[in-house]
Amino acid sequence: MHDWYQDKLREECGVFGIWGHPEAARLTYLGLYSLQHRGQESVGIVTSDGQRLHAVRGMGEVNEIFTESVLDKLPGHCAIGHVRYSTAGEVSLNEAQPFSIKCHRGELAICHNGNFPFAETMRAELEREGAIFSSTSDTEVVLHKLARSRQPHLQQAIADVFRELEGAYSILILTPDSLFVVRDPRGFRPLCLGELDGATVVASETCAFDLIGATYVRDIAPGEILTVNREGLRTEYPLPPQTPAFCIFEHVYFARPDSRIYGRSVNKSRHKMGKQLAREQPVEADIVVPVPDSGVAAAIGYAAQSGINFRFGLVRNHYIGRTFIEPTQSIRNFGVKVKLNPVRDLIEGRRVVLVDDSLVRGTTSRKIVEMLRQAGAREVHLRISCPPTISPCYYGVDTPSTAELIAANQSTEAIRQYINADSLGYLSHEGLLAACGADEGLRFCTACYTGKYPLPVPQRAVGRSHRA
Amino acid sequence: MHDWYQDKLREECGVFGIWGHPEAARLTYLGLYSLQHRGQESVGIVTSDGQRLHAVRGMGEVNEIFTESVLDKLPGHCAIGHVRYSTAGEVSLNEAQPFSIKCHRGELAICHNGNFPFAETMRAELEREGAIFSSTSDTEVVLHKLARSRQPHLQQAIADVFRELEGAYSILILTPDSLFVVRDPRGFRPLCLGELDGATVVASETCAFDLIGATYVRDIAPGEILTVNREGLRTEYPLPPQTPAFCIFEHVYFARPDSRIYGRSVNKSRHKMGKQLAREQPVEADIVVPVPDSGVAAAIGYAAQSGINFRFGLVRNHYIGRTFIEPTQSIRNFGVKVKLNPVRDLIEGRRVVLVDDSLVRGTTSRKIVEMLRQAGAREVHLRISCPPTISPCYYGVDTPSTAELIAANQSTEAIRQYINADSLGYLSHEGLLAACGADEGLRFCTACYTGKYPLPVPQRAVGRSHRA
Amino acid sequence: MHDWYQDKLREECGVFGIWGHPEAARLTYLGLYSLQHRGQESVGIVTSDGQRLHAVRGMGEVNEIFTESVLDKLPGHCAIGHVRYSTAGEVSLNEAQPFSIKCHRGELAICHNGNFPFAETMRAELEREGAIFSSTSDTEVVLHKLARSRQPHLQQAIADVFRELEGAYSILILTPDSLFVVRDPRGFRPLCLGELDGATVVASETCAFDLIGATYVRDIAPGEILTVNREGLRTEYPLPPQTPAFCIFEHVYFARPDSRIYGRSVNKSRHKMGKQLAREQPVEADIVVPVPDSGVAAAIGYAAQSGINFRFGLVRNHYIGRTFIEPTQSIRNFGVKVKLNPVRDLIEGRRVVLVDDSLVRGTTSRKIVEMLRQAGAREVHLRISCPPTISPCYYGVDTPSTAELIAANQSTEAIRQYINADSLGYLSHEGLLAACGADEGLRFCTACYTGKYPLPVPQRAVGRSHRA
Amino acid sequence: MHDWYQDKLREECGVFGIWGHPEAARLTYLGLYSLQHRGQESVGIVTSDGQRLHAVRGMGEVNEIFTESVLDKLPGHCAIGHVRYSTAGEVSLNEAQPFSIKCHRGELAICHNGNFPFAETMRAELEREGAIFSSTSDTEVVLHKLARSRQPHLQQAIADVFRELEGAYSILILTPDSLFVVRDPRGFRPLCLGELDGATVVASETCAFDLIGATYVRDIAPGEILTVNREGLRTEYPLPPQTPAFCIFEHVYFARPDSRIYGRSVNKSRHKMGKQLAREQPVEADIVVPVPDSGVAAAIGYAAQSGINFRFGLVRNHYIGRTFIEPTQSIRNFGVKVKLNPVRDLIEGRRVVLVDDSLVRGTTSRKIVEMLRQAGAREVHLRISCPPTISPCYYGVDTPSTAELIAANQSTEAIRQYINADSLGYLSHEGLLAACGADEGLRFCTACYTGKYPLPVPQRAVGRSHRA
Ligand SMILES: Nc1ncnc2c1ncn2[C@@H]1O[C@H](COP(=O)(O)OP(=O)(O)O)[C@@H](O)[C@H]1O
Ligand SMILES: Nc1ncnc2c1ncn2[C@@H]1O[C@H](COP(=O)(O)OP(=O)(O)O)[C@@H](O)[C@H]1O
Ligand SMILES: Nc1ncnc2c1ncn2[C@@H]1O[C@H](COP(=O)(O)OP(=O)(O)O)[C@@H](O)[C@H]1O
Ligand SMILES: Nc1ncnc2c1ncn2[C@@H]1O[C@H](COP(=O)(O)OP(=O)(O)O)[C@@H](O)[C@H]1O
Ligand code: SF4
Ligand code: SF4
Ligand code: SF4
Ligand code: SF4
Ligand SMILES: [Mg+2]
Ligand SMILES: [Mg+2]
Ligand SMILES: [Mg+2]
Ligand SMILES: [Mg+2]
Repeated sequence: MHDWYQDKLREECGVFGIWGHPEAARLTYLGLYSLQHRGQESVGIVTSDGQRLHAVRGMGEVNEIFTESVLDKLPGHCAIGHVRYSTAGEVSLNEAQPFSIKCHRGELAICHNGNFPFAETMRAELEREGAIFSSTSDTEVVLHKLARSRQPHLQQAIADVFRELEGAYSILILTPDSLFVVRDPRGFRPLCLGELDGATVVASETCAFDLIGATYVRDIAPGEILTVNREGLRTEYPLPPQTPAFCIFEHVYFARPDSRIYGRSVNKSRHKMGKQLAREQPVEADIVVPVPDSGVAAAIGYAAQSGINFRFGLVRNHYIGRTFIEPTQSIRNFGVKVKLNPVRDLIEGRRVVLVDDSLVRGTTSRKIVEMLRQAGAREVHLRISCPPTISPCYYGVDTPSTAELIAANQSTEAIRQYINADSLGYLSHEGLLAACGADEGLRFCTACYTGKYPLPVPQRAVGRSHRA
Repeated sequence: MHDWYQDKLREECGVFGIWGHPEAARLTYLGLYSLQHRGQESVGIVTSDGQRLHAVRGMGEVNEIFTESVLDKLPGHCAIGHVRYSTAGEVSLNEAQPFSIKCHRGELAICHNGNFPFAETMRAELEREGAIFSSTSDTEVVLHKLARSRQPHLQQAIADVFRELEGAYSILILTPDSLFVVRDPRGFRPLCLGELDGATVVASETCAFDLIGATYVRDIAPGEILTVNREGLRTEYPLPPQTPAFCIFEHVYFARPDSRIYGRSVNKSRHKMGKQLAREQPVEADIVVPVPDSGVAAAIGYAAQSGINFRFGLVRNHYIGRTFIEPTQSIRNFGVKVKLNPVRDLIEGRRVVLVDDSLVRGTTSRKIVEMLRQAGAREVHLRISCPPTISPCYYGVDTPSTAELIAANQSTEAIRQYINADSLGYLSHEGLLAACGADEGLRFCTACYTGKYPLPVPQRAVGRSHRA
Repeated sequence: MHDWYQDKLREECGVFGIWGHPEAARLTYLGLYSLQHRGQESVGIVTSDGQRLHAVRGMGEVNEIFTESVLDKLPGHCAIGHVRYSTAGEVSLNEAQPFSIKCHRGELAICHNGNFPFAETMRAELEREGAIFSSTSDTEVVLHKLARSRQPHLQQAIADVFRELEGAYSILILTPDSLFVVRDPRGFRPLCLGELDGATVVASETCAFDLIGATYVRDIAPGEILTVNREGLRTEYPLPPQTPAFCIFEHVYFARPDSRIYGRSVNKSRHKMGKQLAREQPVEADIVVPVPDSGVAAAIGYAAQSGINFRFGLVRNHYIGRTFIEPTQSIRNFGVKVKLNPVRDLIEGRRVVLVDDSLVRGTTSRKIVEMLRQAGAREVHLRISCPPTISPCYYGVDTPSTAELIAANQSTEAIRQYINADSLGYLSHEGLLAACGADEGLRFCTACYTGKYPLPVPQRAVGRSHRA
Repeated sequence: MHDWYQDKLREECGVFGIWGHPEAARLTYLGLYSLQHRGQESVGIVTSDGQRLHAVRGMGEVNEIFTESVLDKLPGHCAIGHVRYSTAGEVSLNEAQPFSIKCHRGELAICHNGNFPFAETMRAELEREGAIFSSTSDTEVVLHKLARSRQPHLQQAIADVFRELEGAYSILILTPDSLFVVRDPRGFRPLCLGELDGATVVASETCAFDLIGATYVRDIAPGEILTVNREGLRTEYPLPPQTPAFCIFEHVYFARPDSRIYGRSVNKSRHKMGKQLAREQPVEADIVVPVPDSGVAAAIGYAAQSGINFRFGLVRNHYIGRTFIEPTQSIRNFGVKVKLNPVRDLIEGRRVVLVDDSLVRGTTSRKIVEMLRQAGAREVHLRISCPPTISPCYYGVDTPSTAELIAANQSTEAIRQYINADSLGYLSHEGLLAACGADEGLRFCTACYTGKYPLPVPQRAVGRSHRA
């Protein structure tokens, strides 16, 4: 695996659901395809034909697993789907979602983006009561709780379960006759509602709606449980309300720039981050160069604000496959070169402001800086469009442990020296909040930058990260 | 799918286990390879490295799923494995065994050859208590029962579960530190114990021992629970004893002729069936021709007894793949021809005794008779080395429903006319028992020939078949 | 690769052709499937739609390469196809036939079973004249000669080429409008003509006709050039006639027993070989056991003649894949065990006559004898249904070099000791000829048993083997 | 296939070669990986181990065909490789390069980027003389000519052949002991020379050097024949000199922006095209938006010159696979949406200058304009960074026929209406030349914009396009 692959926060998952469309499986396939950046290691779709559920899951990308003939095995008017990135070691297909099971309520499928920090306790309790688990996933805890609930109606069972089990979750549940859409009361992870030819669609990001031609209606609200079935849509808010805590990192890095999440354009936030970064961390330079693709929008903002010329000084290889054969002799910066190549003509002799979205371990940034210097850069000033990442996420993002987060352990000056930049500047916490619309009333989780966790975390989990 | 594929009783499953060998996964692979005739549709291996279990399952044959690199993912000194034939419709990987789960006892894997006629009742009860099921398999019921048992020791929990849940089962259970081997008190399905370089091995048939060079020690006894771990082997018989009821159909058709099961050579039984058949159903003819391969041993016995010449008049294609592209125009007897071709030189002008092991729906036999007539046979006398199959099996063999079993619905004469043979003769019930060693004290289930079920079957299940 | 795989004479190739049927590609696929025993390493089909040729070739077995969608790329009413075994080292797809090219005559495809002992000389000459070769195959020499010929009609060009280039060949040539079928004047390799619904079919063996329901018409005669096109069938004999020299080894081993080649049943020949072998090499014993499958027919003959009981004492594994993962520890006779397993019950305490078709290096026979001894055989008497193999074949069979042919270098007694049999007996040359119908006028090549080559071989080739 | 895939000029091919490095195959793999944008449909590598050539070719992308185990089959210190885009219909592996053959000179492999407009005539002549062709490729003509040449030395034979056969070609020829590098006297296609640890490397573009860490030395000169072998490098110019005619379209679209070809940075040329376009085709607008990725550099130049803000208003999907399952219902602009999605927040209410590199059929541009309008654009002004494409290319670029080139048939105003833009502006011929460095002495082919062909084209070929 390439070094640059190790050195980022990995997206957790993406979900997509549809109710009431003759091409449910196919549109879910397309929706997941648009959400592929949220997870590339496993993918699954479960459909309902009104009587029974049909499921296909696999390890790989959407268009590796789903061919025409596979989609043909997924009949019905309703579907849910999931893309997932798996943490190191968990390569098993058992972990791929949606999970589909049978219990006293009949058939039931579930998929999930988020994390339950207290799942482990509940899992141990369930095990003591005789439950068996097929995966290591928190999501299975939810299934057990649903199956054990005495509530006659699934909707109420769902409410009961989530009253008991706090966490970060955007969840879709499919039964032969209904689709349930659930978002946690803090709204950690995004979840959008749309409409297509009378069918109801939900997706982690609006870019999924764009591809299938669906119209964005609104976000699923924090704490909302939406039930979709033959009787239409019904919304309830049975969970104790909480102050929202939208994951700000979705705006910084995860979400696609063309998406709208929390009702706000991701590109707009990034552009503003870049502008604010230019105000907070100005520097004399000749060109602003993004680390593509995630750094592009902020770099354009930085250039616009600073008046320094924006240039595409790093070109990204279109054809990166998942495996890559390395030469046995060592080639300098080989891992990064597979992905990026400098445009020497632009870099040579120039003072470069290099803009990236985040800096995790620092190993990749270090190599990019070196690559620019080899290409002749006179100075390299790294600007990061968010504050230093100092704490792990417990709400669905796979972060390295605190020990590996360079900013949790070293001063900005020490980091600058490590990556060998002429200067290093981060966006401030306030700057980030403002760029993301805090002034307009949006309330965010920023725990990975501050260590202040909106939903407290069990002590023994501290320092480890989770996600599902 | 070819017609001949529809017209037989499908083997259920085969199991293999090993404890205490550095090449556990590789030897399990070889063992399963030898048991491939017991199931070709899914295969799985779970190993233990002493701390954790490692699992790989897949749809396909042993040597499609397990490559060098896949086996490398299965470290450890202990392993269990399973090959399986899946009934129509259940194509899901979810059904592939061994199942591996986590529960309050820790990690646990299980694989199973047999069937639980009462599983459905217990499953419904478990569901009412909140259990969730990931497959349709009976085996999952066992897992839930084990997880719910209060018994501190797994061995006792196993005993408890099977005291409550009667059925036909040869089961292997693997935990990080122990292997449990269980056979039901009637001993429906075979299970053999062997030894290789100090390691303990178990397998459905002894042919698995031959390939890996293991020595056959004895059969696992009906009702035995054998525990293998660092402290050695421990045997217990905690279940209420029962009169044995070894599946006689293993000797008729399922098992490989080079295997020894129930302590008796399969080839020997078949040879004796053929001899007895010649005594009971003599006929004047020129040659005895087997339907290869399952009819060969009985045909040789028939020839030996009758003095009629044995000839290999039907040749079997070595290269049958699982899928086969048919011409759009219809070719006479096409399905059977893909598998078998007559040796015209032998058949032409001759009176043929055709020997096969069983006759299920009659559709294939009919085509083979026709094929022989086209090849010039003067007469075709079909001899079947067992009695008419009149009842479904509830103990692990996938039988068509009673309505489809031709002998359950028509007289032998009517069947003869249907298949267009000059005569048709079956082996008698007594003849079959004698051939299989009943005189020497072996006690068999023969329910599919008599309708007399050693373990009574829940009323609502009657007429349907099960297996796992 | 398994040892038993090294220790036999490998079949060279099989050809199939059809003219005038709407399902040409599909029937060719079926025909090749029946000829799969003649070559398993590459396969190809070329069709003509009347205007253009369409080709697919691949490395692997027929049903790996040809799926529905691949066959759909092969439109037209005429087709030729080829299966091939490749000699060590030549793994390239470049060698897979049919070859299809364009030259001044237009498009042209060719496939070939046989060998040209003088091709190398002609190849060197062509290269000197500027020809380029894409493969190492003799067949390409034929293409060059056809392309260079001044003859306006392809049929005459073919005659010219083969007047100049002697050898062993059964060749099919397809152009957009015609099919040419050619067999060398000695008729070394078989080639049969059939008919199906008005379409003309040709195949290496009649078993290909049986599967598709075609009727056998006659053999293509030695020296015949048959042209099939819209004007019907036209036969010519433009080549200097020769005494026929049908490869006797086809009857001994290569051809399927259910085939008829040179107008004679292969099974019949083998049965007679067995009988004659019993006369020439009698022995006191309890049972006759074949090495399946190639030894079966001769073993039945041996048993019939000698009065000793025929028993199926070696069982052949149905599921041998091409690759097989070996355990790292050595298991005795592992390679042979993957393919064969003894039926201990039959072998134990018995004096066994083991019948096989040929003995090449002796390594496999040695292991089988050892396996039988381990299974308890009291005596093992090996009988081979042909004379000692002492010379390589230059006419299309891949033989080890003289140095590796055990019978070329050691006495029968020395071989017996090497394989550790109690006795070893070969069929005599006269016995073999008689069994194959020499009395009825058939004339055979038996050079590999006698060193007397019907078509002399260039001096420098002696000791090396060729085939295409 | 997606509509956007149809509507562009497809890159022909890319070549890479190396002489004198122990990891020749692996470095060629990496080089081809960097050149993947020049052809994605077939790929091949041939190596020399000093005695023999070793070849692997396949249909697909570099990292689909070349795995570790495949590369292991390619030993040796020298290698040549090729990526290729195949024109419609030619899906055959026969067309994949490098071709490797045997002739009187021994083994020889060749790969080629370019086209021979007169090949057809020569091919017909060769066929008349008895040559056979395995592919439809011009490159095979070269092989035949080399094989027929009487010149004792290959180098002289090469000179002879190309004296006779004019065209556009960057060619690599590998023999067991030498590498020959040839560029046509007009230098139509780029070809660069580099150095890595003492080994000689050549590549179509310098980006291949960057990935493997090689140093750019110089371009192979027009008309140069470079021989690399144990005696070192030897350069000759045996061909009649010509005025250079570097393909300007490489700078407009084909080459990667981070490459340097004809000794000039591609990014620099594109940036200048954008600036000049802004001068020639100014417009009042709010933002400049590129069609990514090919339009980015010119858009940045346009923005820089015009002072209008550069914004990334179209986002490109990272995960486009080669096949894509479409919904059966039609989704508006579906094909383009799979690749691009507008950032509504940037587009809405804005006057947009949309910058793309070329406009071929116009169908894609039309859909992009519509997509922007749906996203709320107030005005859309399309700017193309080259002149109207009015003539097909005969020198290695796969252009639609004149009938399909919209600018060959319609006025700019008519095109504007068709694509429904508010305005449409092209860069002038002079502007393009200046941007690409004509002032600095570079001489270009611009025939596709002017119809003035530097190397005249055989009459009957006019209107059709070729490439190899
Ligand atoms: N199609 C897309 N176009 C532009 N940006 C995208 C696209 N898909 C994902 N992204 C953004 O790209 C980022 C990931 O891409 P990139 O930065 O190039 O890779 P990395 O994950 O290695 O940093 C994500 O943050 C996401 O915002
Ligand atoms: N890795 C890369 N980064 C940026 N541009 C590239 C890269 N590879 C190829 N290109 C450029 O992108 C162009 C092709 O990409 P693009 O325009 O996105 O697709 P299309 O071929 O559909 O127009 C080529 O012109 C080439 O100059
Ligand atoms: N390797 C083997 N050699 C001989 N018989 C075998 C082998 N493997 C399985 N069998 C026997 O063959 C039977 C299945 O083969 P066969 O009769 O040819 O196919 P079918 O299942 O179609 O009847 C099984 O009954 C088993 O006893
Ligand atoms: N379908 C078949 N049934 C019986 N014999 C066959 C069949 N196909 C090929 N043969 C015969 O089997 C021989 C090859 O099989 P076998 O002896 O089992 O393997 P080996 O090639 O290892 O000796 C060939 O000689 C051929 O005559
Ligand atoms: S901790 Fe960071 S990544 Fe996790 S939810 Fe909060 S803002 Fe998002
Ligand atoms: S019913 Fe028949 S197949 Fe089933 S266990 Fe009894 S004997 Fe065996
Ligand atoms: S030498 Fe032997 S194998 Fe070759 S053609 Fe003659 S008989 Fe056949
Ligand atoms: S015609 Fe156009 S594409 Fe072709 S070589 Fe000339 S400039 Fe390049
Ligand atoms: Mg990034
Ligand atoms: Mg059978
Ligand atoms: Mg054999
Ligand atoms: Mg483009």
